[in-house]
Amino acid sequence: MDERLEKQLAFILEIDKEKNIFRQTHLSGHGRNENDAEHAWHMAIMAYLLREYANEEVDIGKVMLMCLIHDIVEIDAGDTYAYDQENLKTQKAREEAAKQRIFSLLPDDQKVELMALFDEFEDYETAESRFAHAMDNFQPLLLNNSNEGGDWKEHDVDAKTVYSRQNKTALGSKKIFEVSDMILQKNIASGALKK
Amino acid sequence: MDERLEKQLAFILEIDKEKNIFRQTHLSGHGRNENDAEHAWHMAIMAYLLREYANEEVDIGKVMLMCLIHDIVEIDAGDTYAYDQENLKTQKAREEAAKQRIFSLLPDDQKVELMALFDEFEDYETAESRFAHAMDNFQPLLLNNSNEGGDWKEHDVDAKTVYSRQNKTALGSKKIFEVSDMILQKNIASGALKK
Repeated sequence: MDERLEKQLAFILEIDKEKNIFRQTHLSGHGRNENDAEHAWHMAIMAYLLREYANEEVDIGKVMLMCLIHDIVEIDAGDTYAYDQENLKTQKAREEAAKQRIFSLLPDDQKVELMALFDEFEDYETAESRFAHAMDNFQPLLLNNSNEGGDWKEHDVDAKTVYSRQNKTALGSKKIFEVSDMILQKNIASGALKK
Repeated sequence: MDERLEKQLAFILEIDKEKNIFRQTHLSGHGRNENDAEHAWHMAIMAYLLREYANEEVDIGKVMLMCLIHDIVEIDAGDTYAYDQENLKTQKAREEAAKQRIFSLLPDDQKVELMALFDEFEDYETAESRFAHAMDNFQPLLLNNSNEGGDWKEHDVDAKTVYSRQNKTALGSKKIFEVSDMILQKNIASGALKK
């Protein structure tokens, strides 16, 4: 087998491990914890179906690929819960090291391309990144809402903390933020999310 | 919330169930059984990275979306093991009913679009469908090979049966079929796959 294909297959086999990285979010129907690969799959389909609500014109193929690869670094760095202030401090450094190791399995051109796409997602500065982030926020919100806000109750987070993240959804999609806000208000009213 | 968005969100929540549809394939590292959502995620990334090996020019965005949605019908129809002759007989009818129910949750335009994409995958007649099928065959082959062919041993399948499916990979990618063939020959030599 030639070296290029061998490298591509090494990367492909390596990212299989993303299926073992579990998140704090639970599947609908009060299911088990969700893993990163499932989350990314769900986000990519959501992005495609909801693209009409993006604030700006987006290259939807790029958004979908961004969604699919944005959590690959967690194979080494682990999942950092969005409201875990302590672990959030070291997240950047852990993910940077992971990015270097994992994407370096690929042939150089694809390594450069996927690293750039990952960085673009993280930098939050393009229309594609803003819309992908909107999906990254909205997907667990939908699941958690379908489970009566169980994840918020479990972690005892308050509305202010949740809004500090969810507010950014409006940067990618005002419409999706409106729905997010409606869902959050419902969960505050029910007591699932502390004021 | 307007009716269109409500329908889109109903579909998005419904497909969460695909994460509970488990396949016969095991994750690398002799892991647990893989589910359909993880399999689809993996296939979509593979399609993107390996697109240079497609026999014909493909619209890669379309291939990726096809990979992401091709197993949604299994939410109702269940996973049919590729070498289970009995269940293969009823697969088409079960999947057709599932297709009608699940995609009908979407607004009409998106229902029509996704059903057509699903049918295109099933019909195996376009360059995109052939390449997506190559990924659908190659992804479990890679995982199974990484586990010393454990899935073949467990189901006691023989090389002829496996080749009857894997041969079709060549329709989408001669190069990926060459690698598949190499992997199969290795597993026949080791005894993991019966002659």
